[in-house]
Amino acid sequence: MHMTRTNYPGIEAYMLSCMSDSAHDQEHVYRVLNYALDIARHESGVNLELLVISCLLHDIGRAEQFADPGIDHAICGGDKAYEWLASNSYATEFADQVRRCIVTHRFRSSNPPQSLEAKILFDADKLEACGVIGIARTLQYKTHVVEPLYTLSEIGEITEDYPSFLYEYNFKLANMYDKFYTKRGTELAQKRKAAARHFYEALRDEVIECYSIKEIP
Amino acid sequence: MHMTRTNYPGIEAYMLSCMSDSAHDQEHVYRVLNYALDIARHESGVNLELLVISCLLHDIGRAEQFADPGIDHAICGGDKAYEWLASNSYATEFADQVRRCIVTHRFRSSNPPQSLEAKILFDADKLEACGVIGIARTLQYKTHVVEPLYTLSEIGEITEDYPSFLYEYNFKLANMYDKFYTKRGTELAQKRKAAARHFYEALRDEVIECYSIKEIP
Repeated sequence: MHMTRTNYPGIEAYMLSCMSDSAHDQEHVYRVLNYALDIARHESGVNLELLVISCLLHDIGRAEQFADPGIDHAICGGDKAYEWLASNSYATEFADQVRRCIVTHRFRSSNPPQSLEAKILFDADKLEACGVIGIARTLQYKTHVVEPLYTLSEIGEITEDYPSFLYEYNFKLANMYDKFYTKRGTELAQKRKAAARHFYEALRDEVIECYSIKEIP
Repeated sequence: MHMTRTNYPGIEAYMLSCMSDSAHDQEHVYRVLNYALDIARHESGVNLELLVISCLLHDIGRAEQFADPGIDHAICGGDKAYEWLASNSYATEFADQVRRCIVTHRFRSSNPPQSLEAKILFDADKLEACGVIGIARTLQYKTHVVEPLYTLSEIGEITEDYPSFLYEYNFKLANMYDKFYTKRGTELAQKRKAAARHFYEALRDEVIECYSIKEIP
């Protein structure tokens, strides 16, 4: 059983029904919602209904992308959100604003967020790749896709030629912190940067120390 | 393709064949071997052949336990190691020493390690639950068994009544550090303690901060 946490119980129930295949993912949605509300308090003129509903529904296309990697969960989720809202008494104009927020939340999208609410959703979602929550989520994801913590060269040194957690940190996570649209988003991200770096460096040091024993009987 | 890393290529090949279902797990075996050799250099009278072979084969019963949780991988792995060694020209007395090292490597076993080599293998394996490697491996394991990072009470506070990563850290990982048999094992563990605690505290702080926003529109 799940307690409703917003004033949109119907939308929450629909979101939760889309998350059925990954038990822990709904907390990602609630964290994104919480960050978005924090950022919204530092901005003026935010349409909170649009923001909350966009946050709740932003990842409802995940299952489709997981089943078929050719599908972009942001586009699929935007379409699903539009359909659901339009079929549940929301104005099509509002449903379309939600769709546009969701379509542009994806980091690699060539389509940057336009509205204030879309920028806040983007920043709130990117905060989930920052700090140690970002580290923990990346480790969970790497486990799902069966990638290792690190890869080694033939002489036992860490190499970053192949996908691994250490590679992902260096080429993606470490470079997120200056890619926010809002001032508050940047502030929240910067606050978490040191703890993530600390984990990365400690892991790298432990691995290097472990493999530094060369003579094996 | 895999480079042989020890002078026991036949045993390594057998170990690797037992690890076929989890691509990243062989590095756990090599790290345990490396820690064991580090500890061995601080002890006298270690039978290195016994130690290296016991390290290489200590987790070969994992697949059986994974398929049937009623099977203890330490006992099963010990039996498999004995059979393989006895069928591959090793003396049955030696194969039995290896078996006893492997049977007692498990933390919850009521059967504590007896020989020096068994104590070194136990300590080397426990080091894998320490530091940020311990954190990363626990997050991988929790992902496999579909447990969340944390659980929340109805008022959105972290609760430790249910299995989660934070629970596991507090009730298991944090209490590993004084359970080693060798002085060097304790030393290596203590060196890693602060980085693991730092990650735990940062994660708890990020979660608490995120859910501290109470008013949701």
